[in-house]
Amino acid sequence: MKIFVLGGDGFCGWPLALRLSANGHDVVIVDNGSRRRIDEDLKSGSLTPIADLKDRVATWHEVSGRKISTACINLARDYRRIRNLLVLERPDAIVHLAEQRAVPYSMNTVAGGRYTFSNNICATTNVMMAIKESGIDAHLVHIGSTGIYGYETLGYCVPEGYIRAHLHADGSPSKALDILHPANPLSVYHLTKAQDQLALAFFAKHEGVRVTELVQGTVWGTQTEENVRDERLINRFDYDAVYGTVLNRFALQAALGYPLTVYGGGGQTRAFIHIGDVMRCVQIALDNPPDRGARMQVFNQIAETMRVRDIAALAAHVWPGVLVDSLHNPRDEPPSNEFSLSNEGFRSLGLEPRKIKDGLLAEIRDVAARYAHRADRSVIAPVTSAPKRRTVRKRPQELGLTN
Amino acid sequence: MKIFVLGGDGFCGWPLALRLSANGHDVVIVDNGSRRRIDEDLKSGSLTPIADLKDRVATWHEVSGRKISTACINLARDYRRIRNLLVLERPDAIVHLAEQRAVPYSMNTVAGGRYTFSNNICATTNVMMAIKESGIDAHLVHIGSTGIYGYETLGYCVPEGYIRAHLHADGSPSKALDILHPANPLSVYHLTKAQDQLALAFFAKHEGVRVTELVQGTVWGTQTEENVRDERLINRFDYDAVYGTVLNRFALQAALGYPLTVYGGGGQTRAFIHIGDVMRCVQIALDNPPDRGARMQVFNQIAETMRVRDIAALAAHVWPGVLVDSLHNPRDEPPSNEFSLSNEGFRSLGLEPRKIKDGLLAEIRDVAARYAHRADRSVIAPVTSAPKRRTVRKRPQELGLTN
Repeated sequence: MKIFVLGGDGFCGWPLALRLSANGHDVVIVDNGSRRRIDEDLKSGSLTPIADLKDRVATWHEVSGRKISTACINLARDYRRIRNLLVLERPDAIVHLAEQRAVPYSMNTVAGGRYTFSNNICATTNVMMAIKESGIDAHLVHIGSTGIYGYETLGYCVPEGYIRAHLHADGSPSKALDILHPANPLSVYHLTKAQDQLALAFFAKHEGVRVTELVQGTVWGTQTEENVRDERLINRFDYDAVYGTVLNRFALQAALGYPLTVYGGGGQTRAFIHIGDVMRCVQIALDNPPDRGARMQVFNQIAETMRVRDIAALAAHVWPGVLVDSLHNPRDEPPSNEFSLSNEGFRSLGLEPRKIKDGLLAEIRDVAARYAHRADRSVIAPVTSAPKRRTVRKRPQELGLTN
Repeated sequence: MKIFVLGGDGFCGWPLALRLSANGHDVVIVDNGSRRRIDEDLKSGSLTPIADLKDRVATWHEVSGRKISTACINLARDYRRIRNLLVLERPDAIVHLAEQRAVPYSMNTVAGGRYTFSNNICATTNVMMAIKESGIDAHLVHIGSTGIYGYETLGYCVPEGYIRAHLHADGSPSKALDILHPANPLSVYHLTKAQDQLALAFFAKHEGVRVTELVQGTVWGTQTEENVRDERLINRFDYDAVYGTVLNRFALQAALGYPLTVYGGGGQTRAFIHIGDVMRCVQIALDNPPDRGARMQVFNQIAETMRVRDIAALAAHVWPGVLVDSLHNPRDEPPSNEFSLSNEGFRSLGLEPRKIKDGLLAEIRDVAARYAHRADRSVIAPVTSAPKRRTVRKRPQELGLTN
């Protein structure tokens, strides 16, 4: 299969390009280096030493004998170039990860918010317009976010994309309808994912584009089977307050002897998936495209949901004696929530996802420890636009951990 | 009140700027002339001779003694200019009509679709980011479209914005929730309005922007009390197949002795409102802003719903002997639908909307007849990207008219 990986130089995109290549697919990475430029702007960077994209694909060729092509295209702006590349290459599938993915980046500055809107929405719509105009029948696999469902307590397990509903007007319930699960984004980033979803559903329904939407939880971990084959293939490890997600930040904070930072009581429940399972899920999605003309197919791409404070408790087993700093939460969300999502779609297709407690924290502990000397300590503390509030330092046990 | 009218040189924007000025408000028109440039690109134009914006506001000053300021800003691109103007002028309210509004323009060409996406979504998000960054407390009134609800038979009267729902997961219904009415856009244009609505709801909920969304039906008619005060104040009258809406097109087709063109059996039900009532509705909305921190306020801005073939039947009374050409419908929609919407919000605030059958067709008949000599006959037939199909010519009675 010929597969385009849009955003193939990024945290999920790069290991995915390798995995798909290792699985025998003909892979084309489309990436404009946006994530690397944001690193420069934020004066942050990956803890792991990431090679530039040319070296990455040259190393992969050296190690595996397989070629990955690359194209530098700004998908939100260079419509003609992506359309022409589709016409030339006629991919069977396109995995679209070319979106700005950090909540804080989308919320901390006006420029970051505006970039997130224009990049994410225009990239997605340009890709679909280009599929339509080029006349190819590529299966578009888009990476969404569990944040579109909102992180409030819903009282039910969120199904995959659609939910059966009775609507009440004129004093009586309507017939049962399957509607897209109502969106409740808490950040500009998540808002763009909800807007994307409307556009994806439209192009599936009215333009015959075959679309699979993967509603993905927070990805943790660093390395896959392919990334470890050579240090020049190593994946990103973000630990700064903007792009670093909770598990990687905990790992590095602990490795350097800092307290772990959580917002409030750490009662926020989030959905998680290990990067290795992301690889498996996308391959399963590619193997199971919807029919042309079918509605957008949606899978929840998650392994489990956990409270942040319970993750801190697991971390306390890996790094005994670690402390926890409780900070004011700059996000407009409840202090704690119950949140569960179905992942029956991928499970029914054979996925057995790995959990955080399955000893996998050791992997990120080892990566964090190995490269801790490269860390810029100035970017470890959270930086937000919210007013400074009192910080409370505790042992993990004192947070009311349930694990 | 100081009020910005974004898109104030357009079909609804221009008479609105005049009305708000006549009502004693301090009006600033922000418009980049996009609609006039599209006229040039499409080689179409208003049937009525519209003066350029400078002459328009100079005439208004001459006629009324009142000043309207203007600023030429591309809202989707010139973020800094709109933010700086907000900081300088500190408007109390902003009416946002600066969006590409023609369904065919958004669907017939890739360039039109891409412009509709990038212009509409980036304009809306830039305006809200600018309100947030400038720190002003302006009430944002956005013009949406009834097309976000979809033109399928729903079996109930569509309430205003939100609908009470029971969601079914885990085998049992959830508690009752008020959700945004599910979106079901049939065109790129309507999709952008659905995406806008998510963004408007987000900025109301999380950024404290006071937002009113006016879900507007198809606007018909041309002139308002203010437009008729001088010919140089005349409003647009679009009759081409891209921007001309059904009533104006019927009027000109009849005035020139052409058959009226309908898609299929003309069974499509649409929502309508006269331009004079648009003026009243927006003034009512401005007089009734939501509180800061309240959820987005939504009104359905419509007078009535009618089938296209029933409008043709009314036209047959105004233009006896007129014929109807039934064309293949290029849109992906059912051949006929039942569709009703509540307009209780505006009614409860005093609106008594005028209906098409209230003799108002005479106004557009007179405008069409008066300027028929200016018509470009080549743009009167529908032009779409759909394959040519057989045309069936009938008398209105033969369409199975119910009126």
